[in-house]
Amino acid sequence: MKYSNLFEGTECEALLIIDSSEQNMDLYYLTRFFAPDAFACVITPEQSSVIVSDLEHGRACMEAKVDFVLRQIEYAQKYSDSAGNISVTMKAVISVLKEKNIRKVLVPQSFAVLYADILRAEGFELCVKQGPLVKQRMIKTADELNYIAHAVLETENVLEDALNRIACSEIRDGKLYYENTMLTAEKLKNHIAARLLERGYLSLYTIVACGEQGCDPHHQGSGPLYAHTPIIIDVFPRSLTNFYFADMTRTVVRGTPDPYVVSMFNSVARAHQAAVDKITDGVPARDVHKAVLDVFEKDGFKTGLIDNMLQGFIHSTGHGVGLDIHENPRVANVDDILTDGMVVTVEPGLYYRGFGGVRLEDLVVVTGNGAANFNRLPKQLVVAP
Amino acid sequence: MKYSNLFEGTECEALLIIDSSEQNMDLYYLTRFFAPDAFACVITPEQSSVIVSDLEHGRACMEAKVDFVLRQIEYAQKYSDSAGNISVTMKAVISVLKEKNIRKVLVPQSFAVLYADILRAEGFELCVKQGPLVKQRMIKTADELNYIAHAVLETENVLEDALNRIACSEIRDGKLYYENTMLTAEKLKNHIAARLLERGYLSLYTIVACGEQGCDPHHQGSGPLYAHTPIIIDVFPRSLTNFYFADMTRTVVRGTPDPYVVSMFNSVARAHQAAVDKITDGVPARDVHKAVLDVFEKDGFKTGLIDNMLQGFIHSTGHGVGLDIHENPRVANVDDILTDGMVVTVEPGLYYRGFGGVRLEDLVVVTGNGAANFNRLPKQLVVAP
Repeated sequence: MKYSNLFEGTECEALLIIDSSEQNMDLYYLTRFFAPDAFACVITPEQSSVIVSDLEHGRACMEAKVDFVLRQIEYAQKYSDSAGNISVTMKAVISVLKEKNIRKVLVPQSFAVLYADILRAEGFELCVKQGPLVKQRMIKTADELNYIAHAVLETENVLEDALNRIACSEIRDGKLYYENTMLTAEKLKNHIAARLLERGYLSLYTIVACGEQGCDPHHQGSGPLYAHTPIIIDVFPRSLTNFYFADMTRTVVRGTPDPYVVSMFNSVARAHQAAVDKITDGVPARDVHKAVLDVFEKDGFKTGLIDNMLQGFIHSTGHGVGLDIHENPRVANVDDILTDGMVVTVEPGLYYRGFGGVRLEDLVVVTGNGAANFNRLPKQLVVAP
Repeated sequence: MKYSNLFEGTECEALLIIDSSEQNMDLYYLTRFFAPDAFACVITPEQSSVIVSDLEHGRACMEAKVDFVLRQIEYAQKYSDSAGNISVTMKAVISVLKEKNIRKVLVPQSFAVLYADILRAEGFELCVKQGPLVKQRMIKTADELNYIAHAVLETENVLEDALNRIACSEIRDGKLYYENTMLTAEKLKNHIAARLLERGYLSLYTIVACGEQGCDPHHQGSGPLYAHTPIIIDVFPRSLTNFYFADMTRTVVRGTPDPYVVSMFNSVARAHQAAVDKITDGVPARDVHKAVLDVFEKDGFKTGLIDNMLQGFIHSTGHGVGLDIHENPRVANVDDILTDGMVVTVEPGLYYRGFGGVRLEDLVVVTGNGAANFNRLPKQLVVAP
């Protein structure tokens, strides 16, 4: 009954996913078969199968961690097509479900409506799973922890090098110059991406946001990097071999920061430590989030609409990281409980117009003895040669 | 009625997509708003809207090529939640549809069953569009042709450099050594990826398949590169700024190829030219595919199960390329007609156990005066310093 926990709270006889495992991480997690083209996966409480085209059959037999690799064409031929117009994939899925005498099928909330309508017309009963499909993904195995630890290690090496470029920059007319060339967000992002790619990691959407750009947590940053101004660098690369993510952020200033930015940074660092200190097996996520809120309140940093802009601590404290960059649990004012083996970011931040943003983010694993931090890179606001 | 062609053959009053435009290229095409997180898009024959969270509102107002950017929270508040359990996204979508008096809604075949069930329970009628949603994507605009031309140009520069590494390799014990180090598929792929990244292109899953590995068109290749043996290099990078793809393949040998490999290469090159010569505005795709089949038949290269393995010309002649690496039309034994402005690959290949694979792939645009080839890089089997 190795897959029975997937069916908790349902009376379904099988789970069905039809998707690309490049896009659907539940499918990748359950099969460990990475394929850009869509394939079907049928899991009963006792056994798992994938149904693949002949082009993928050989590779699936070698790579997929499932009990059976079924040939799509073989099962599609068993389906007698009265309706016409049904794809080979769906014919094979229907044949497999019928052969296994399955009538009640669990599907993820993202399951394609076209397939759902076909299955219902064929008499299958679908239970649509709302929210996370594979809760087990939250609790990382030893292998997964190793993948994430290695991703963090490589990310820190590359980020340290990037921060060093800022530290070694000259200041001319208030802008940073590295090796006699103006340093821009784009150049630093390209440098980070190239160094990570050499190490087998893909970093898309890296944030290098200077000054006002840092006030919008979704702004990826562009243009010159300025002295005396906070620069947020948020990197979340993914392994090209095992597909696990790292996620970390540092905020630095080259030159002399405004005293208010210094006080923001110190408060964010305290809030970060307070959250990390709070994390342990069994702690409610909202208590960790509250530890951050308490520090900001005590330090007098307000959150809300200021000049009609949302400012202050305007996002949650953290989120799970694994095969998806944002996965469960959430570290916010929610009901999630942090338990042994969960990997979450701790990333408090403060954002104020006129000063910019400050965010510090580490990745930690929850244990019975508190949070174990994957990160080693110091948190230091002012960087200099 | 600028969007009316989307509704051809339906009686729907609006098209609804809820997805990430990082994953759904129809959504990106229709909105030109790139967002990793899911958002909703409602298009009537007269106007287009996106419904976004406050975190994305500012960026959507600047970037999205739509008539209206609607605030999700504002519309969600208009929905009176009797059922409970409906997400903010869906509350906002329902409010927007009701405000526009829309009852019949067109959705893509990939539309999430969870959302479909909620909409149907709310009394909406869904028409599920089977197959390609936005046919217009097949016919490229001048901007799109420029993006693709630039992607091909950069790909050719990088591939030329990669082929040069093979050409300049020394042969020791039958293996290739570049600058005194053994040349492997992995090293060549890393080199290609790094050079393309510098140019703003992301190349995942590049194929460098030597010898027997080349017989499986999905094998990405690994390990040492051998002399006297065909090496297939298939690169399909995507722009990190405009998201359009290139796609090209060359096959080369360092050293002395088997005479049978030479005859395979010459036949593939002739088949390639025959297909390109056949392409013009209005030509049936199957005629182009047949031109390839005819050359292989005339040259005596058979396709089918040989020693229980599919060998010969085991895939189709080509496919559309644009925001997706595989998009419509298909160049195969299908009903598609190639028309002015379509961009397709022409990529015949031959695969025989004991000899390896040979594939040659260019990207062309269909015009009234035949196929205009984006590629310039020569097709040459034997490479030498």
